[in-house]
Amino acid sequence: MKIIIVGGAGEIGKAVVAELSQRHEVVVAGRSRGDVKVDVNDCHSIEEMYKTVGKVDAVISAFGKAEFDSLDKMTPKRYQLGLQNKLMGQVNLVLLGMQHVNDKGSFTLTSGILNQHPLKGATSSAMANGAIDSFVKVAAVDMPRGIRINVVSPTILSESMEKYGELFKGFTPVPAATVAKAYSNSVEGVETGQLYKVGY
Amino acid sequence: MKIIIVGGAGEIGKAVVAELSQRHEVVVAGRSRGDVKVDVNDCHSIEEMYKTVGKVDAVISAFGKAEFDSLDKMTPKRYQLGLQNKLMGQVNLVLLGMQHVNDKGSFTLTSGILNQHPLKGATSSAMANGAIDSFVKVAAVDMPRGIRINVVSPTILSESMEKYGELFKGFTPVPAATVAKAYSNSVEGVETGQLYKVGY
Repeated sequence: MKIIIVGGAGEIGKAVVAELSQRHEVVVAGRSRGDVKVDVNDCHSIEEMYKTVGKVDAVISAFGKAEFDSLDKMTPKRYQLGLQNKLMGQVNLVLLGMQHVNDKGSFTLTSGILNQHPLKGATSSAMANGAIDSFVKVAAVDMPRGIRINVVSPTILSESMEKYGELFKGFTPVPAATVAKAYSNSVEGVETGQLYKVGY
Repeated sequence: MKIIIVGGAGEIGKAVVAELSQRHEVVVAGRSRGDVKVDVNDCHSIEEMYKTVGKVDAVISAFGKAEFDSLDKMTPKRYQLGLQNKLMGQVNLVLLGMQHVNDKGSFTLTSGILNQHPLKGATSSAMANGAIDSFVKVAAVDMPRGIRINVVSPTILSESMEKYGELFKGFTPVPAATVAKAYSNSVEGVETGQLYKVGY
């Protein structure tokens, strides 16, 4: 298969590239690194990326920024990063990518554990996660030409514990290589509309 | 209690007003009808509403618009109505309203069934619902002064079957008066972070 991985230089992305490049042609897309440049906040840039790469069998997104702060410090504006980057960045990859994905191809998006297990300060992350999980569930019944769509919802990565471990004391970190298996299942398997929860 | 109901002139809102005005002071807010005018898409208008009404014990939102169309006809722009109105309209009522809600008061938001049971064309509604459900779950652990927050997720209303019944053939409609009981439970009860699913 030919697979494009957007955010392929991040912690999850690197592990997914390592897993899938063993047996597929993998194109890494990213804002500053990768085989092709893309700004996921810009629809025109997403369209250019798809034109450059050509038809693919699978699109994986492994990125998603959102602000993290307590509710009394959050403002309407501070939710925009999560909505524009993590949520609509991924949704726009689907909307603008559908015509570039071969019949029976797939999309695999990334959400996260914070809408399943709340942490103080996580309202924006959780909002984006819940929106992505729900979008995928419904988009799966709406996809043309047998195209599938799933979402991977990982817990905190082992690789991220140094940076974020204090917040995730009650969670068991999972290595990115383990999380990458869920993307393999989504891309190489047969399921659609699934939420792959990896770890707690 | 003094309760403000935003969207109090809609099908759900009217039933909630009928239920709660029997035993509380209810202020109805709406874009064109009600005791006080508010444009939920405009943060300044929300702030003006709270200033006009003064301190309240409960804020209820019973509105939420989103575009409904098949995925291949949806565009990035067409998701904005759901994100701005249904999602951030309600979230901004919380963010801008926290200081106007008395200690141990409550917020009650409204999502809907379409992220639990997908329908073709419902990606935008489902996205907003999932985002609201998740926001509420996390906001509940982040609220100051004992303020509670819950969300009501109703199925199709009996009152809406004439207009939307064709889409909801596999669902059992519920009268708005029954849905209103969930708002009563949220406002007059003790729970927080709850998702009240009404009907299927």
